[in-house]
Amino acid sequence: MSNPTAKHPNADVRMRGFAGRISVEQSLQWLDAELDGLGLLASEFVSLDNAAGRVLAADVVSAANVPNFRRAMMDGFALRAADIADASPNTPKSLGVLGDCFPGQAFAGEVSAGQAVRIMTGAPLPKGVDSVLPFEQTESNGNEVRALMSLPTGKNLGSIGEDIACGDRVLSAGRVLRPQDIGVLSSIGQSQVTVVRRPRVRIIVTGDELLPAGAQPIGSKIVDANGPMLTALVERDGGLPNHPGIMPDNRDAILAALEDDADILLTSGGSSVGQEDHVPTLLDEHGKLAVHGVAMRPAGPIGMGTFKGRLVILLPGNPVACLWGYDLLAGRAIRRLGGRKADWPYRKVTAVLGREIKSPVGRYDYIRVQLVNGKVEPVAQSGASVLSSTTRAEGFIVVPTEVAGFGEGTEVEVFLYDSV
Amino acid sequence: MSNPTAKHPNADVRMRGFAGRISVEQSLQWLDAELDGLGLLASEFVSLDNAAGRVLAADVVSAANVPNFRRAMMDGFALRAADIADASPNTPKSLGVLGDCFPGQAFAGEVSAGQAVRIMTGAPLPKGVDSVLPFEQTESNGNEVRALMSLPTGKNLGSIGEDIACGDRVLSAGRVLRPQDIGVLSSIGQSQVTVVRRPRVRIIVTGDELLPAGAQPIGSKIVDANGPMLTALVERDGGLPNHPGIMPDNRDAILAALEDDADILLTSGGSSVGQEDHVPTLLDEHGKLAVHGVAMRPAGPIGMGTFKGRLVILLPGNPVACLWGYDLLAGRAIRRLGGRKADWPYRKVTAVLGREIKSPVGRYDYIRVQLVNGKVEPVAQSGASVLSSTTRAEGFIVVPTEVAGFGEGTEVEVFLYDSV
Repeated sequence: MSNPTAKHPNADVRMRGFAGRISVEQSLQWLDAELDGLGLLASEFVSLDNAAGRVLAADVVSAANVPNFRRAMMDGFALRAADIADASPNTPKSLGVLGDCFPGQAFAGEVSAGQAVRIMTGAPLPKGVDSVLPFEQTESNGNEVRALMSLPTGKNLGSIGEDIACGDRVLSAGRVLRPQDIGVLSSIGQSQVTVVRRPRVRIIVTGDELLPAGAQPIGSKIVDANGPMLTALVERDGGLPNHPGIMPDNRDAILAALEDDADILLTSGGSSVGQEDHVPTLLDEHGKLAVHGVAMRPAGPIGMGTFKGRLVILLPGNPVACLWGYDLLAGRAIRRLGGRKADWPYRKVTAVLGREIKSPVGRYDYIRVQLVNGKVEPVAQSGASVLSSTTRAEGFIVVPTEVAGFGEGTEVEVFLYDSV
Repeated sequence: MSNPTAKHPNADVRMRGFAGRISVEQSLQWLDAELDGLGLLASEFVSLDNAAGRVLAADVVSAANVPNFRRAMMDGFALRAADIADASPNTPKSLGVLGDCFPGQAFAGEVSAGQAVRIMTGAPLPKGVDSVLPFEQTESNGNEVRALMSLPTGKNLGSIGEDIACGDRVLSAGRVLRPQDIGVLSSIGQSQVTVVRRPRVRIIVTGDELLPAGAQPIGSKIVDANGPMLTALVERDGGLPNHPGIMPDNRDAILAALEDDADILLTSGGSSVGQEDHVPTLLDEHGKLAVHGVAMRPAGPIGMGTFKGRLVILLPGNPVACLWGYDLLAGRAIRRLGGRKADWPYRKVTAVLGREIKSPVGRYDYIRVQLVNGKVEPVAQSGASVLSSTTRAEGFIVVPTEVAGFGEGTEVEVFLYDSV
């Protein structure tokens, strides 16, 4: 976690006016150190029917045995194994049938030597028996059953706590709850479960050129793509997005929006060093602008900092840069705050490059790609303002900071966009 | 799609009383043929903020150019390239500055030869210019700017329709909408999108031994695990689950439940050939029981059929069998009805078996496994009633029908439970 350019891990690693941008690795170090300091969000109770996909905040220990009774695992006759020790098809052993055992109903009587009870799978065993002989190994006639086989004591029955014993830790904190986990939680009598609270994420989209989602693009305006896209990304990563609408490029309005009581704030637009780029200067004056400018393409004019103790990530307004900046930094922050894995939620495949990719040493590149005849090809038109390049792409590769690109035929890791 | 045991692909392939079970492959053939006949569900409109993860029902063709104007791609001066053809740091070329162009605002005047306009990234180009010279390549002083470099015509500007041209097909039917797709849809002025309707799934859980989710396990009863688990599975696969509560083991009650106006009905419990197994006989009498008994473990006593034209899948009550039966058949049906990939939504890895796994030829086995020191090990306790074995498992492997197990050291495909 050491940061070669800073006195301590989270010192101010910003370079003013992008005179010298910090590396992607340094920006991740700053973010991870900040997230280490913040820790997990508080926990909350949710009902079981809202719990799938949530992150367990505490270990779950069962207060019950499942099942809480001995039960039949086959349809057959409950009996004492010793009574039919010598039974065979040629020497069947006769027992008197006392009655029937159905699931969910305790059998009133007790079974004595020489007796049996007809029993269904899942029914509680009556007193006095120790085994279940399946129907297929019997012949029965009214109140008499003939055992055609012997069997060991305990055969075809489920013991108390066979599935889960009282005191068992059934699930551990940090678990992302799966459908079968919900089943297990229900079976031990949990109607609620303690999960990590979802990170509240305020999305602040600025830009006087923007029309709100739902509008038609007219005149010299464009319709906001970043607000709806960020909303979907935040939901994907387990956050609770709040995007009340486009903000004007106005210092007072943006400053007021930064006061939002969210766990993390994402701004889109005005993140650079131009005349209309208010967010970095506002954060500098009223909060902390810790990172500004990262040596990567796209999304170089990205920033990170804090405002009244809350994490703020300054995403560029160009939509491709906004997507990449989100994936690199914001998504990681949201997932970690919510107790999820920091890693990208994209499936990885390995494939061979169909053409050379150049990238200067010292810069981290995000490259949208398609798989053409099994080979990795960059998507042709790929400026940072061409969002449709990210929908034409099947995924992306990255060229790390210290690497000067990859030659044709190099095996690379592709992160697939369709995997979520 | 041919079915060797049947006269035509979807003839009745059931074997009564499980005298001879059909193979997993045959059961999938029946299901796929049935789904081919049903086709996709109808489409519906959803607003963009509810569209991520939904399946597009029709191609989306843009009715707009994005952007709909020529715009600056850098902060700088909009000018005529011909005016500064000979400019260099030693021979700067002076132009008069007419004013400023901001994003979202059309510039009122027209730029003549010898003139320039200060312009911000994203702002519409004024009339009369053809290029943008970045600030870094200029010196300016009040109403005068000195160009220090020449540049080609068209440099640093984005053309009309650069991202998306009017008439472009931006997304195709069948697409599972990604966050960036939502951004693109917003940018072309779509406030709604046509998606495949979610399959409505009625969950009918029967069992007199069952207490509803939220109850404490007491006496000879167990708490329903399958209802909550199936609800979560259906949601995972894009369906709309409806599970109003436990049904009694009662023919009339189950028959009434089968009348539900769902797209697919899942029953849990009573799927076998015992005295209390009402669902198969009900379907036989009032609908069609097409498949009953499949040569696999667990979930052999599974069934499929139709009731008033609606698909019914009969899942066993044992929770492990219920999970596996869902994953093999029901999940596939729900995903296909909703326009999704039939495949399991589990990530696959290849790993080596740490011990031999035996399975008789003629039976398809589902085996829960853990990865221990990188090797695949079956989960120790794994009866069909031990649901906790599926939460201890990291995933599963299958042993296909025609295979007699795998030797230690065999490379197998593991489907991981944590990947959704």
